[in-house]
Amino acid sequence: MTPRRSVATGRLMIYDTLMRTRRPNADRGSPRVGLWMIGACGGVGSTVALGIAALAKGLSTATGLVTELPEFRHAGLVDPSTIAIGGHEVRNQTMLEAVREAHGRGGLFDGELVRTCTPWLRQVQRHIRPGTLFGAGKTIRDLADRSVATRDRTAAAAVRRLSSDIAAFRKAKRLDHVVVVNVASSEPPTKPAAAHRSYAALVKALAKPGSRCVPSSSIYALAAIEAGCPFINFTPSAAISIPAVRERAEALGLPYMGNDGKTGESLVKSFLAPMFASRNLAVLSWVGQNILGNRDGEVLADPKTRASKIKSKERVLSHLSGKQTTTRVSIDYVPSLVDWKVAWDFIHFEGFLGTKMNMQFTWQGSDSILAAPLVLDLVRLAVREVQRGTVGPMKHLACFFKDPLEADSADHFEQWRSLVEHAAEAPVQ
Amino acid sequence: MTPRRSVATGRLMIYDTLMRTRRPNADRGSPRVGLWMIGACGGVGSTVALGIAALAKGLSTATGLVTELPEFRHAGLVDPSTIAIGGHEVRNQTMLEAVREAHGRGGLFDGELVRTCTPWLRQVQRHIRPGTLFGAGKTIRDLADRSVATRDRTAAAAVRRLSSDIAAFRKAKRLDHVVVVNVASSEPPTKPAAAHRSYAALVKALAKPGSRCVPSSSIYALAAIEAGCPFINFTPSAAISIPAVRERAEALGLPYMGNDGKTGESLVKSFLAPMFASRNLAVLSWVGQNILGNRDGEVLADPKTRASKIKSKERVLSHLSGKQTTTRVSIDYVPSLVDWKVAWDFIHFEGFLGTKMNMQFTWQGSDSILAAPLVLDLVRLAVREVQRGTVGPMKHLACFFKDPLEADSADHFEQWRSLVEHAAEAPVQ
Amino acid sequence: MTPRRSVATGRLMIYDTLMRTRRPNADRGSPRVGLWMIGACGGVGSTVALGIAALAKGLSTATGLVTELPEFRHAGLVDPSTIAIGGHEVRNQTMLEAVREAHGRGGLFDGELVRTCTPWLRQVQRHIRPGTLFGAGKTIRDLADRSVATRDRTAAAAVRRLSSDIAAFRKAKRLDHVVVVNVASSEPPTKPAAAHRSYAALVKALAKPGSRCVPSSSIYALAAIEAGCPFINFTPSAAISIPAVRERAEALGLPYMGNDGKTGESLVKSFLAPMFASRNLAVLSWVGQNILGNRDGEVLADPKTRASKIKSKERVLSHLSGKQTTTRVSIDYVPSLVDWKVAWDFIHFEGFLGTKMNMQFTWQGSDSILAAPLVLDLVRLAVREVQRGTVGPMKHLACFFKDPLEADSADHFEQWRSLVEHAAEAPVQ
Amino acid sequence: MTPRRSVATGRLMIYDTLMRTRRPNADRGSPRVGLWMIGACGGVGSTVALGIAALAKGLSTATGLVTELPEFRHAGLVDPSTIAIGGHEVRNQTMLEAVREAHGRGGLFDGELVRTCTPWLRQVQRHIRPGTLFGAGKTIRDLADRSVATRDRTAAAAVRRLSSDIAAFRKAKRLDHVVVVNVASSEPPTKPAAAHRSYAALVKALAKPGSRCVPSSSIYALAAIEAGCPFINFTPSAAISIPAVRERAEALGLPYMGNDGKTGESLVKSFLAPMFASRNLAVLSWVGQNILGNRDGEVLADPKTRASKIKSKERVLSHLSGKQTTTRVSIDYVPSLVDWKVAWDFIHFEGFLGTKMNMQFTWQGSDSILAAPLVLDLVRLAVREVQRGTVGPMKHLACFFKDPLEADSADHFEQWRSLVEHAAEAPVQ
Repeated sequence: MTPRRSVATGRLMIYDTLMRTRRPNADRGSPRVGLWMIGACGGVGSTVALGIAALAKGLSTATGLVTELPEFRHAGLVDPSTIAIGGHEVRNQTMLEAVREAHGRGGLFDGELVRTCTPWLRQVQRHIRPGTLFGAGKTIRDLADRSVATRDRTAAAAVRRLSSDIAAFRKAKRLDHVVVVNVASSEPPTKPAAAHRSYAALVKALAKPGSRCVPSSSIYALAAIEAGCPFINFTPSAAISIPAVRERAEALGLPYMGNDGKTGESLVKSFLAPMFASRNLAVLSWVGQNILGNRDGEVLADPKTRASKIKSKERVLSHLSGKQTTTRVSIDYVPSLVDWKVAWDFIHFEGFLGTKMNMQFTWQGSDSILAAPLVLDLVRLAVREVQRGTVGPMKHLACFFKDPLEADSADHFEQWRSLVEHAAEAPVQ
Repeated sequence: MTPRRSVATGRLMIYDTLMRTRRPNADRGSPRVGLWMIGACGGVGSTVALGIAALAKGLSTATGLVTELPEFRHAGLVDPSTIAIGGHEVRNQTMLEAVREAHGRGGLFDGELVRTCTPWLRQVQRHIRPGTLFGAGKTIRDLADRSVATRDRTAAAAVRRLSSDIAAFRKAKRLDHVVVVNVASSEPPTKPAAAHRSYAALVKALAKPGSRCVPSSSIYALAAIEAGCPFINFTPSAAISIPAVRERAEALGLPYMGNDGKTGESLVKSFLAPMFASRNLAVLSWVGQNILGNRDGEVLADPKTRASKIKSKERVLSHLSGKQTTTRVSIDYVPSLVDWKVAWDFIHFEGFLGTKMNMQFTWQGSDSILAAPLVLDLVRLAVREVQRGTVGPMKHLACFFKDPLEADSADHFEQWRSLVEHAAEAPVQ
Repeated sequence: MTPRRSVATGRLMIYDTLMRTRRPNADRGSPRVGLWMIGACGGVGSTVALGIAALAKGLSTATGLVTELPEFRHAGLVDPSTIAIGGHEVRNQTMLEAVREAHGRGGLFDGELVRTCTPWLRQVQRHIRPGTLFGAGKTIRDLADRSVATRDRTAAAAVRRLSSDIAAFRKAKRLDHVVVVNVASSEPPTKPAAAHRSYAALVKALAKPGSRCVPSSSIYALAAIEAGCPFINFTPSAAISIPAVRERAEALGLPYMGNDGKTGESLVKSFLAPMFASRNLAVLSWVGQNILGNRDGEVLADPKTRASKIKSKERVLSHLSGKQTTTRVSIDYVPSLVDWKVAWDFIHFEGFLGTKMNMQFTWQGSDSILAAPLVLDLVRLAVREVQRGTVGPMKHLACFFKDPLEADSADHFEQWRSLVEHAAEAPVQ
Repeated sequence: MTPRRSVATGRLMIYDTLMRTRRPNADRGSPRVGLWMIGACGGVGSTVALGIAALAKGLSTATGLVTELPEFRHAGLVDPSTIAIGGHEVRNQTMLEAVREAHGRGGLFDGELVRTCTPWLRQVQRHIRPGTLFGAGKTIRDLADRSVATRDRTAAAAVRRLSSDIAAFRKAKRLDHVVVVNVASSEPPTKPAAAHRSYAALVKALAKPGSRCVPSSSIYALAAIEAGCPFINFTPSAAISIPAVRERAEALGLPYMGNDGKTGESLVKSFLAPMFASRNLAVLSWVGQNILGNRDGEVLADPKTRASKIKSKERVLSHLSGKQTTTRVSIDYVPSLVDWKVAWDFIHFEGFLGTKMNMQFTWQGSDSILAAPLVLDLVRLAVREVQRGTVGPMKHLACFFKDPLEADSADHFEQWRSLVEHAAEAPVQ
């Protein structure tokens, strides 16, 4: 982790970073923290919002929050129930509608909880602003509210608008820190381009009308950075991975991390692959079939976007002992499952004397329910890094991601140990 | 690990320990090592024998041997293909017959391999001696060859006879070290008794005609100890766990370990339980159903014996976060599976906002194929401890067992790390 | 099916059968029908009640009702939404409480539906009467409301009381037909006894204080019969199977049927076993593991009761081609599942050239949700038989049961064809 | 089934149909029967050959042969162990090599059986002739022996050559009947073409050099027909389905049938789909994932060919009650499985009160082992139809196929009943 560097002045930057470091509540104890979500009214975003309300009202335990484990007791993390919520959204759907659909069609959440939190969700909705369609694919454009498309003349203008939304939220809610987390739909893979290589080149490219040089996720990442906020990419999209974007974050002294939250099937893989390796059993084939019915599944029905997700999922098995292992990952959109994901994995392995054996598992979980507490974990942990003055990739958060940026180890247990050890270090005051 | 103590002189001991430490090949490099198996002609025993032959003839890779992983490259372990084989058996079945049955009915092993190794298996058979029925239950008595029952007048006499078998094997094969491993059928749980408390009391009790104060496994353990051999219990039987037996092993300066090799379903549990814990997901219920068709399954059809196995299996989940977790383990004997074990586990867990989700897995493996290389691992690692002068439980071998003796941690990953660190320490020359 | 015989006069009978045949609404079209449930406030009973309310209010489709298939369109069946509900219950729990628990803890039912139907469920509760503990086992006695135990001095008195409850319900609701269905908990197996052989002997035995000659289910069956009602046993309990009880039903000209509704895993078995048979594949082993968390599961935690259920479940596989098939059925109580049943079946089979293959399935269903519509089907079909004058076992309903009384065929498809053909016959007007 | 029509004279026909009806052994009882397989040295072909040898030598039971069930006892079928074998093959692989690979890598067959039948397999190999690459796709061309490609100048010449191979086999083995069965790899879907509409047009088109108007399977079908042999298509390829080919078969008075043998996952679907339908449970989604490692899997790795197979597999669910059911079928090539197929199906269904439930199954079977006995069944049953003078599609064989030609019913049970009733009819003498 690089020491905090002095902050460069960038052309797109519209709010001074002093604002970010002015911590009005610092002396009064815990800082005031906000979470700004990209794709705020999707499954994960609305579950995060409902979850915070439930925690605040004492209607839910912290089950599912990693940072509530004893290992993090003395890490000085912010109370998750106090986190303020805002975000960008391109569709014409409110958080309340998303919650009600997940409840009604998907069987998620207690009905009583939804009713109790309805006024709260309506209030949060006031902090949801229109997103951008610059760099978005056809699937997203089709889902989006028409008014979103015509808001900005250039991608650069979009960055400015989105950035000012975040800054306005910080101001309105008088927050010390705002962490921006991308929980929007997956994007197709992004091809490397010249404009990705330096911030200067990128700024130039974004200013051209009709430029499609980066995907939406990177536009949001830039907006977050320009607003002086740490950015976390919970999807397999390019977002913060583009060198020019990272360059800018580091120039402004910001920490960031990604990609693609490890919530279900991939998490299981992370734990089982080392089992075979540590018993010196040769994995011949590992086949995974994922079916899901939420927006993510709908977006992933597009083969290009699916390719991006599959690539990220396959990373998890990259350190399997057998080099000649056949790996297959399929994803299918099955609307009746709504927010539920069903994954079946078949593992064909060879033991002593060339004996072929197999193991299979089926995972039946709700993606939103699994992801939401991890988003809160990441916010809490990112605020701590801001306090500690960390700049660049937060490598110690690797165990939260399928495809972690610059992870020191591909081994989940090493990643976990690194997280726990990091949590034990004293925060910079 | 306690430092080696001076060797006490015991009444039952018939061979001086000098023999054990006289290493004729020490200066010629690698020591000559023997493996003496209790239940040598069962599924695991015969697979170990076939496996050594296959390794020696270059007909099998070392897949499945943990000690062939890079972590053990510099641990100075004996070449597994050079290990000499002998053992005790109560049934009237040869290793070759066991191998042929596993091949013919269970579909194990390559036919060509069996043919090639047949002369070798016949030769090994010459080192198989009749076991004992002292302390054996009805199921074992029914399976046993009649002549075995009448060999010894007292359990003490049995210890002496069995011990001299091992010593004769060591002498005949001119071995530096013989490790005794119990791969016989599971026994019913053993009730604590006064005679278990001290070696002196035990010796007295064993000398009485008709005494049933300890199960067979402990008689074998004693025989191994009296012959100056480290003892490893790969079953859930009492064996070396009885205080009086451990006392004797430590008095004679011997290392030992157990209980119950972790080969299949329990291994998976060891890796998955921490997954739920580390994501702060509450496991509500964990139900396991095991079906198997080998001798072990037949013996476990007896409810008492099954209880012993189930208890051992449940240990693996003992450190699950949720204290109120319902755990169920069933074992059923399904003859058509022969040596194959099929295990189905259903895990009901709760995530954020009280959402219930589930995961299930099915494991289809051959117990003998999974266990045999671990037996070789344990022999290699035990020889190293003898060389290093270790006395008492080899706690660093905990990750090989479902119910490890005096493990420092119930966490498999901690256990694994302990093993790897131990392997990196320089062996005593 | 025997033609209707003239009605004998029995001692216990308190209401004349004229009442039963007096159909006040016959000329006004559809008859007025009631359903009297034994165990009315359990999972199945309360779901039946909620279901009728939902159908009546147009809040549910008829999915799950067999009798809504096209095959039954012209069978002249009563509208299920018009069926009046009453019943016996030994526990101090209301239908509304049962519904709320299934909703809150088990995730069943839409919350809005529960709210809308709450007044209706409260009204139905007025027709729930205390049951009896005569012939009940310890598990049921422990669950029961204390006041129930002391209501009747003899079993005969209990029959009279229970019977008059049913008659009072018929009168109060001015019903043409009342069908009594046993949806109470499973009972342990009943041993044959002399008093079971004839109605005369049974009447004598029941009159003795403290008599335990028949289980509760048979006392309820007798009460139904004495009230002139067809009786259907949806559980594996003895109920109507006792010869003396059947004798009485036939003497009073009543149709009846049982045993044990075929709702989930057993239904799957009924369809898969013929698959293997029709391809001449030899089933070597069929192992089933059932885990469930409802009252039924709690009661089945008692080994004796479980034996009864397992026996019934094994019937389904009785006509498997391979005579030497190993069959195993386990049932475990896993409270966290609430009303959900998870069943795992492993089928080991042999094909051409002695090749062993396997198939496994996991069924995850709600027992109450699956059973409730079948109860409505049976009521509709039983009313039709009463109208047609059928006496004795309704063999054409065999496909609804795991262990059908006097089924003409053990083959589910034959049973289904028999049902469909029967439905096509013109009803007696 | 159309009555036998008089035989038209076709240009391609080289052997008179009298030959076919001259039954030299008719008065000596059972006819002499031959089976000519297209793709004879593939997994299914070589298993059929080994199976006949095993039956002839008494080394295997008839497990897996439908026609050995009691229902067919009096159908007058030929003894399967007496069937002579020949066939076409485009690859440079012998049956013996195929059998040894399936044994060595796939764990199929008993090693002793393979050894005993080796001379027999070598003898059969003398009746294997080179196939054709006219109409073959790239995948097959790449697998094929080079010499095959240059044998014939036109497709018409290929038909003549292939046809004469069959006729020569019949003559050499002095057979009364030869049934031709296509067990070659699946082909991509065939687009309708003008030349498909009439035999006259097809003959003209085939005579043009370089014509690709029909796929290989149809060239083989024509060759069989011209040789006066009934043709059965065990694959999803076009083969006999092309109208011009059917026209020719019917003109020559021949019976035929197809398409795509129903061996594993699809068979299970045929039995489970009616279960949901008959309980009025609405299937919301049915997702199937198939992984396999044999040649079929390799060929199906090509997306076009896979499309053909998937279409055929989806037919099985075509009569599911819910019109809006989402169905998904995936097929993946996983080499380590060799001849084993693993299929996982997830069925999401809705019951009473809108409750969503699910069922999943995993099928682990060997395709060759399941298919081979069905091929023998079809030969036996086709010979019977030849004897009875049947012309056109043998609709009563529908239950053997995923996508049966002109089936009277899409319901497997109706199809089965039709087969059994047909078998009970007296054969024409």
